[in-house]
Amino acid sequence: MATETSAALQAEINRLQLEVSSLKAQQGTEQITVGNYLLARLEQLGVTSMFGVPGDFNLGFLDLVEDHPTINWVGNCNELNAAYAADGYARVKENSIGVITTTFGVGELSATNGIAGAFSEMVPVLHLVGVPSTPQQASKPMLHHTLGDGRFDAYEKAAKQFTFSQANLRDKNDAAAEIDRVLMDCITVARPVYISLPTDLVHTKISSTRLRIPLTRSLPLNDPQVESFVLGQIVKLFEEAKGDALVLVDACTIRHDVREELNDFLKKTGFPVYAAPMGKTAVDENYERYGGIYLGAISRPEIKEKVEAAKLVLSVGAVMSDYNTGNFSYNIPTKRTIELHSDHTRVQYAAFPDIGMKQLIPKLTERLVSYHTNASKLPVPKFISEIPREGDATITHMWLWPRMATFFKPKDVIVTETGTYNDCSSTSNFGIQDVALPEKSVLLSQVLWGSIGWSVGSLLGASIAAREVGLGRTILFVGDGSLQLTVQELSVMLRVGVKPIIFLINNSGYTVERYIHGKGRKYNDIINWGWTNLFKVFGDPDGKLSRTYTVRTKDDLSKLLEDKTFASADKIQLVEVMMDKLDAPRALKMQAELSGTTNAYAAVSSPVTVA
Amino acid sequence: MATETSAALQAEINRLQLEVSSLKAQQGTEQITVGNYLLARLEQLGVTSMFGVPGDFNLGFLDLVEDHPTINWVGNCNELNAAYAADGYARVKENSIGVITTTFGVGELSATNGIAGAFSEMVPVLHLVGVPSTPQQASKPMLHHTLGDGRFDAYEKAAKQFTFSQANLRDKNDAAAEIDRVLMDCITVARPVYISLPTDLVHTKISSTRLRIPLTRSLPLNDPQVESFVLGQIVKLFEEAKGDALVLVDACTIRHDVREELNDFLKKTGFPVYAAPMGKTAVDENYERYGGIYLGAISRPEIKEKVEAAKLVLSVGAVMSDYNTGNFSYNIPTKRTIELHSDHTRVQYAAFPDIGMKQLIPKLTERLVSYHTNASKLPVPKFISEIPREGDATITHMWLWPRMATFFKPKDVIVTETGTYNDCSSTSNFGIQDVALPEKSVLLSQVLWGSIGWSVGSLLGASIAAREVGLGRTILFVGDGSLQLTVQELSVMLRVGVKPIIFLINNSGYTVERYIHGKGRKYNDIINWGWTNLFKVFGDPDGKLSRTYTVRTKDDLSKLLEDKTFASADKIQLVEVMMDKLDAPRALKMQAELSGTTNAYAAVSSPVTVA
Repeated sequence: MATETSAALQAEINRLQLEVSSLKAQQGTEQITVGNYLLARLEQLGVTSMFGVPGDFNLGFLDLVEDHPTINWVGNCNELNAAYAADGYARVKENSIGVITTTFGVGELSATNGIAGAFSEMVPVLHLVGVPSTPQQASKPMLHHTLGDGRFDAYEKAAKQFTFSQANLRDKNDAAAEIDRVLMDCITVARPVYISLPTDLVHTKISSTRLRIPLTRSLPLNDPQVESFVLGQIVKLFEEAKGDALVLVDACTIRHDVREELNDFLKKTGFPVYAAPMGKTAVDENYERYGGIYLGAISRPEIKEKVEAAKLVLSVGAVMSDYNTGNFSYNIPTKRTIELHSDHTRVQYAAFPDIGMKQLIPKLTERLVSYHTNASKLPVPKFISEIPREGDATITHMWLWPRMATFFKPKDVIVTETGTYNDCSSTSNFGIQDVALPEKSVLLSQVLWGSIGWSVGSLLGASIAAREVGLGRTILFVGDGSLQLTVQELSVMLRVGVKPIIFLINNSGYTVERYIHGKGRKYNDIINWGWTNLFKVFGDPDGKLSRTYTVRTKDDLSKLLEDKTFASADKIQLVEVMMDKLDAPRALKMQAELSGTTNAYAAVSSPVTVA
Repeated sequence: MATETSAALQAEINRLQLEVSSLKAQQGTEQITVGNYLLARLEQLGVTSMFGVPGDFNLGFLDLVEDHPTINWVGNCNELNAAYAADGYARVKENSIGVITTTFGVGELSATNGIAGAFSEMVPVLHLVGVPSTPQQASKPMLHHTLGDGRFDAYEKAAKQFTFSQANLRDKNDAAAEIDRVLMDCITVARPVYISLPTDLVHTKISSTRLRIPLTRSLPLNDPQVESFVLGQIVKLFEEAKGDALVLVDACTIRHDVREELNDFLKKTGFPVYAAPMGKTAVDENYERYGGIYLGAISRPEIKEKVEAAKLVLSVGAVMSDYNTGNFSYNIPTKRTIELHSDHTRVQYAAFPDIGMKQLIPKLTERLVSYHTNASKLPVPKFISEIPREGDATITHMWLWPRMATFFKPKDVIVTETGTYNDCSSTSNFGIQDVALPEKSVLLSQVLWGSIGWSVGSLLGASIAAREVGLGRTILFVGDGSLQLTVQELSVMLRVGVKPIIFLINNSGYTVERYIHGKGRKYNDIINWGWTNLFKVFGDPDGKLSRTYTVRTKDDLSKLLEDKTFASADKIQLVEVMMDKLDAPRALKMQAELSGTTNAYAAVSSPVTVA
């Protein structure tokens, strides 16, 4: 608690120091170019790899990146893939950020969907755009990459919709302060930000004195009186519930960096804990008090029963989106709910703005430790999935995911395509929810945004980040339809030497959509690719860097998973897993039926939410 | 002249009839769903192929497309490629439009760059987006594909920056009128438009009576008094110049459909004609009075001399962008210039708003026919490029383009990557400018927008359109760096059975950028792909549908070009043309040097323009 407070005070001091330094004349003798100032800040934030595509308006800056001693330039095949990679990098390299560099207009606009996804899913990404020089910004000639009508601000206006804050650098006098402002926003709110950097400013000299003061996540202090009142209210509810309570963790536990505080709470209080899909792996899934994934009406029956019967639910970092809640089918009354968020708290029907969970949770732990003995006795279903004995050799989803679970190791980074139930050809995110992942493993998925093809770009960033921070293997599950969207990024993986294992679920088309609508429709078909030749095309003609496999039966796959060389992930590997067109995981089938009804084409059901 | 006027009057009548029909109660007994109303309008506009990617919010509409008797659904690998394809389709299928269908958020945003490119380059494209149902639009639940903060209008706001007009259909009562409004804008201004169609409206019934009145390009009539004054001014300038005049054609001649009027003018008056890069093929390049490409300071000397020495230049449909003008190096004083545009006219320093060239040119022809005898005697340099005799077997740009010119046939559709000098790995657009193309051939390039990878998606749309309208072969020139951005679209070409010839200039990276900046920089390197295995991966394992070749010498390539089977384009074919890393066409080298100076990193030159 004391630590939290002093950290917040220190942040306030830093902020003031920066302001003072802005207000003082910039007379420091130490000079630095704007380009290198930005790189110095990124270095301080722990960025060691940057993504993007070269373009004439960013080449001068890329010279600085290439010459930088600790930051590595990862060129991507296209900008959307680069945005996905920056997103994956930021998700794995916690407390750092992802960076994508593009060029004016053509480049930056290609990244739009990736940046919007980072906004939606709360991933801290800097989108840096090289733009025409400051004189050109003023005279607005009809340059290539413009709309031809003199609107030089159209791209910034679009970026405003999908980034938390923007700095259009035009003046060397406020360039450093502007860079600092948006980078602090980026790390504080965990959302993408946008900087446009004119070609001539890259090499313009400014004072470097501000760099002595590090950027910090400057979370505001909770008001002590309100916080104390809220704590009292929460404790009272625990008393009334006689400790019959449980914790439900979700995405913002990870995104807003309260995993440590939460795990301390769980261990000291002993309450059972469950996770929403976006909160999976926030708490170790082998933790004895962990009961698995709650997904409203489509939860496993034993989980649904326990969660919905509890007298009190402490919800931590919830994101109540359709696919994170079994299509709004939570059956937990608001009266029994306490919601902790990064910037506010809700106790039953009452909202408390500006009371954030980072400082609140440790205090709550102190107040609730006394429940430990009783809370530890509350029963929690074991979250295990037996591998079913099926007579048929065909690989089914029922069999695949429990089997796969035995292959995962601690520290593995697992990426699944994608979060959504409808737009993606892949069914992997549904399957993975039903099995427990090892301790310290990391699961990446895009449950809210759900953009097809995201997982492939994201895998590149995740693999590089995992290598940098000493995590283990990176493993992707993706469908054939999804992989086609962003497939070229596999060639970048070959070039930079990362070695993910890619399980390609080949089910001949957009299976997820078939479940919603159009089971026999042609628009859900795609052409079948010769996947095993992929790496030959992408730069590894003789298999020095890669291996590919096709498995058709349970035995094939089991043998491969048990193969030590395969499991060691010493090369990039692609496993084509042949499955039936209309097979799908349990949760997908249930969700898709709900979803098909909601979208429709027919009636519209009204959502049921916690709050 | 009379025809033009009555066409404009008829357009006005149609517009009024539509308004009357809107105002009348929609009591017609004929009913049609909103989805089918839209398809009926597209059918009337000559659309027979539509591009896009299925997603849960557009599936209901795609059912209607799949069931439509004359409109064919072309599913793309991703949305950016689909936007490029719609752009290529519209460029080739003149007087029709391109259509791309995407899904809410994730899908539509991926297409942003492609749509913005169509805006910049004035290509009529409809971007149709399937969005959540009207009740969901009102209640704004936290659906997948949303930003998670309830902003359901963020995507529309972004689209507003890059489309000429937008219709967010929410009410069946104005759905038909809204559809008509944006489609008329699309065909009139030749820019992209945006329609968002909620899932429930797709099948909502409305009156079909409006469909009886066709949509027309409703160009406003030139004010007769102003027009007559302008004609007088122009004729006076021709008199003063004693007929020492020439015509310079540019992009809007094609985009705003005045090719016929212009060619009639040229034939009846006999004036010499030159083209800007974006106007190439607007006038038959074998026309005896055609002198080639004018590109300011980097024109061929004999062209530069003739154009800049003329006493009067009649500029038709000019787009004065950097790369269309040799980096603003035109040396033609405004005093000697008449500019005709789709919606205004400039005579020397005077601007005449609302005097459009479609109606003006035929009148000008009448007034200037008397110059024919003398104008026909004005010398025009022959626009031919001899194939140079080079001792070395290596394929050079100096040799390649004149050699290639002998391979082209009338009605070929030639696509070059890309319009720009900087962001693209391909040098093809520079090379092609220096050679004359056959009559009725069509050249597609993106000189103003210049997005890398555009040509590949565009090729798909162009190939389908060429097949529909009875044009000949489609031929692409693309660099290895560029092809990597959008490569998966080749698999769609296999699926739909188009048979383009793809010349892949393999020069190991971003050559164009090397000329600007960073000749030896790593960020300009890309990994070398095994191009000859590409079609195996993309769905043609045994070469039934495709052939690939690698050529390393002039002889290799010449033999291939002379091969009758190859030239017949009976399968999709890819020719990897190995060239030196630092070889480039003449114009590229010159332009890149200009451009490197302008962007810089160092000084900024001030543009010189005509007007």
